[in-house]
Amino acid sequence: MATIKEVAKKAGVSVATVSRVLNNKGYVHEDTRKAVNLAIKELGYKPNSVARSLYKKTSKTIGFLIPDITNPFFPQLVRAVEDVMYPAGYTTILFNSDENLEHELEYIEGMTSKYIDGFIVVSNTLQWEHLQGIHVPIVALDRHIDKRISSVTIDNYAGGKEAIEFMMKQGCTQIAHLEGPDHVFTSMERKRAYVDMMNDHDLPILCQQGHYELGQGMVSTMQLLSNHPQIDGIFAGNDVMAIGALKAAAKLGIEVPKELSVMGFDGVEWGTAVTPELTTMQQPIYEMGKRAAELLLGQIQDSPSQVEHQRLHTTLKIRQSVQ
Amino acid sequence: MATIKEVAKKAGVSVATVSRVLNNKGYVHEDTRKAVNLAIKELGYKPNSVARSLYKKTSKTIGFLIPDITNPFFPQLVRAVEDVMYPAGYTTILFNSDENLEHELEYIEGMTSKYIDGFIVVSNTLQWEHLQGIHVPIVALDRHIDKRISSVTIDNYAGGKEAIEFMMKQGCTQIAHLEGPDHVFTSMERKRAYVDMMNDHDLPILCQQGHYELGQGMVSTMQLLSNHPQIDGIFAGNDVMAIGALKAAAKLGIEVPKELSVMGFDGVEWGTAVTPELTTMQQPIYEMGKRAAELLLGQIQDSPSQVEHQRLHTTLKIRQSVQ
Repeated sequence: MATIKEVAKKAGVSVATVSRVLNNKGYVHEDTRKAVNLAIKELGYKPNSVARSLYKKTSKTIGFLIPDITNPFFPQLVRAVEDVMYPAGYTTILFNSDENLEHELEYIEGMTSKYIDGFIVVSNTLQWEHLQGIHVPIVALDRHIDKRISSVTIDNYAGGKEAIEFMMKQGCTQIAHLEGPDHVFTSMERKRAYVDMMNDHDLPILCQQGHYELGQGMVSTMQLLSNHPQIDGIFAGNDVMAIGALKAAAKLGIEVPKELSVMGFDGVEWGTAVTPELTTMQQPIYEMGKRAAELLLGQIQDSPSQVEHQRLHTTLKIRQSVQ
Repeated sequence: MATIKEVAKKAGVSVATVSRVLNNKGYVHEDTRKAVNLAIKELGYKPNSVARSLYKKTSKTIGFLIPDITNPFFPQLVRAVEDVMYPAGYTTILFNSDENLEHELEYIEGMTSKYIDGFIVVSNTLQWEHLQGIHVPIVALDRHIDKRISSVTIDNYAGGKEAIEFMMKQGCTQIAHLEGPDHVFTSMERKRAYVDMMNDHDLPILCQQGHYELGQGMVSTMQLLSNHPQIDGIFAGNDVMAIGALKAAAKLGIEVPKELSVMGFDGVEWGTAVTPELTTMQQPIYEMGKRAAELLLGQIQDSPSQVEHQRLHTTLKIRQSVQ
């Protein structure tokens, strides 16, 4: 493979000039630039991207930190980020943190030493003080971290209220809530919507923890239905727990939606695999990933210090599980 | 932040010596090494990993090429690879190819210029001639590429036969097959198992294309069941199509497993979300990813030219959809 020296020799210029052309930095006469580009083409020279990283202090790489790719919410998000980054010439490095703060900090530090150009983070544990020392753009996705860090989130509270309003409109009067983990922002907002709606309508509050998990969603639904047989609707904090609720109903011989309505939240693909198909409050998952990636790209390329908060909205997806 | 020059000055040695200590290359007296390491510690110096890449022609990074992360088979595989690579100090860069050969080649070429240390590839389109010019280790995962390229696969043919044997043992005599895409190795092997079993037992062959997709699996099952109402079992080439078959049966009012047995293949988590839960031929998905990552690490660190083929086995997972 041709070297930069050979290119310089062929073009009749110095190595430094070739480097200026390659990196588009410093003054180079137009004729010289043409001669260098011609030599590059004729020799089939390929600039070494690692050497370029060192010079430019950029690697055309972003880090993307998520809790766990095996959670069905994340594959679409990852796909969206890559679909924006790759055509823009950026490589995305994924990291599963399992919401472990130590792992997250270790990853961010490790990546920073590789001249990473920016981060997209989905985290409930990272705080401003962990990130303020990072001198590349960061976008928080799905969960807001701090007003000084750009974010793309959805309005979980409004979405939760709309979901419950729909259940009420369909005739539910005894609605229970399967809640997600206590420390998770999205889950707290959805629960707040439920509690406010029940209070506003003078209805009883029936909550059970489901940890955003299928098995726990099923077990908690069993408990709710045996302790409170009058329940006619379940508002689950995410689709996976709602699917657990459907399984629990099937086990107990309770017909959905005739005897019990089940409402999910997220709009993951699993919801179309079950029978009856899940009625849910759909998040624009792909759009969220795309917006976060575009926001990060803008900060990397144009305005590193500009902070922007985008809040997207959910859409009611009526399928078969709410009567 | 401290520079390498400051470390050299503090330790009373040359920059070249510090570099030799950092990269563990060339002779350095033990006392000198200690002095350098002490200076590094005292100054809090962090070696720059991009500069190290350039010197060592290694980036401690591997590329992982898959068709599509939103296919429920892949998240676990990705997680397994990362779980091996990260503790070993390697970063994994994921790429979704959509099985597009041009994208695959572009990615591999791009990554090679970043001194990537190796590749794991899941591909039905890449052939030996596309990869022979790559001078870093490659492991083919899930699908065999060439005997000169290491691979981790499962025995799809034996798994398919075992699945059908179980259906027969449970009393199925009219078994249809929902087949995956024609050009996909795993799908061809599973179909071959079906055809051989039917021929061996003088049973009719009833195949319908399902493209490994939920919707198509459902539509094809509808067609099969209306054209051949005598069908009492469906062997699906993957779980997603099997879930489509369950949905079709529910739509037609056919009870599973009482009137129709449905067998999947893969063992993805979706199979536990549906009612009845899917009986399936389970692949050791996580184990496959782990083995591929370990194989690649071994080749990177010890023996780049060693080729190894590992073939793992499926396990029958009896749940509720086969009587």
